[in-house]
Amino acid sequence: MNLYEKTIKEECVFKGKILDLRIQTVELPNGRTSTREIIKHPGAVAILAFKENGKLIVVQQYRKALEMELLEIPAGKLEYGEKPEDCAKRELEEETGFKSDNIEFLGKICTAPGFCDEVIHIFKATNLYEGKVGGDDDEFINLKEMSIDELKENIINGSVIDAKTISALAYL
Amino acid sequence: MNLYEKTIKEECVFKGKILDLRIQTVELPNGRTSTREIIKHPGAVAILAFKENGKLIVVQQYRKALEMELLEIPAGKLEYGEKPEDCAKRELEEETGFKSDNIEFLGKICTAPGFCDEVIHIFKATNLYEGKVGGDDDEFINLKEMSIDELKENIINGSVIDAKTISALAYL
Repeated sequence: MNLYEKTIKEECVFKGKILDLRIQTVELPNGRTSTREIIKHPGAVAILAFKENGKLIVVQQYRKALEMELLEIPAGKLEYGEKPEDCAKRELEEETGFKSDNIEFLGKICTAPGFCDEVIHIFKATNLYEGKVGGDDDEFINLKEMSIDELKENIINGSVIDAKTISALAYL
Repeated sequence: MNLYEKTIKEECVFKGKILDLRIQTVELPNGRTSTREIIKHPGAVAILAFKENGKLIVVQQYRKALEMELLEIPAGKLEYGEKPEDCAKRELEEETGFKSDNIEFLGKICTAPGFCDEVIHIFKATNLYEGKVGGDDDEFINLKEMSIDELKENIINGSVIDAKTISALAYL
């Protein structure tokens, strides 16, 4: 079956700091119309960053949307026109204080395709060396480290629920 | 470090069919204030549904947010007050035409914690039997099936990029 949905009308109802909201009227495959609520997001990167001891860097952050602290791999939004690899290097340093010139692209994921265009580019970083933490002045982070086995255990026992973190592991 | 962000003010700027958008003014851990753009979503389920031949049911859908067709495991939004397990049974039947009385909860993920409260409950369904396809009249789907190995291959080669599908595999 042909699945394509043609945009008939689009209205931007909100333009924010990190996301826009658009309402689209679409023509469905059966010729009828419906509306789609679409979140436009700049896209992001996430980094599996391995320290010399073989452990992964994990960040603990308060996620206001969920009203809870989450354990996630370092990640951040693409700036306008920024290449994903450059963003990965920048975010890694801003969030963890570590630099890497050894960044490898592993794959990409879409996080919420039913309503959002966010794509996250996943990288692996090794040979870390000291840089300078800081960047976003409204971002507060505790740094942790975990072996791959500890991270897997934390996924199984429900301590790690972040989809990009779980997906990133699948690419290793 | 204490990471908690207290809500000082909240404004609902959009109430839609599937999501609401709220702007929160928050007090940061350092006492300053910032704003958070928050998408409220009812939550969802996703189902690893195994046919008798051992293959997984995969749905192909046009995702308007990404303007592309995606391959995903069956999934759908929770209705108001609905239990995730009941939702999994309903969505499985609506999207694939199969019923199952053998539904096992595997774990949950949050898809976009930086701006959205969506949580997806992941289930495994076996012993499928025939039900009745249909439900959402603005949802158009092609059904496929894949072995676990084919699905893994499609993740590695970039044909499957959906985070809930990739995450669900991690729970097996």
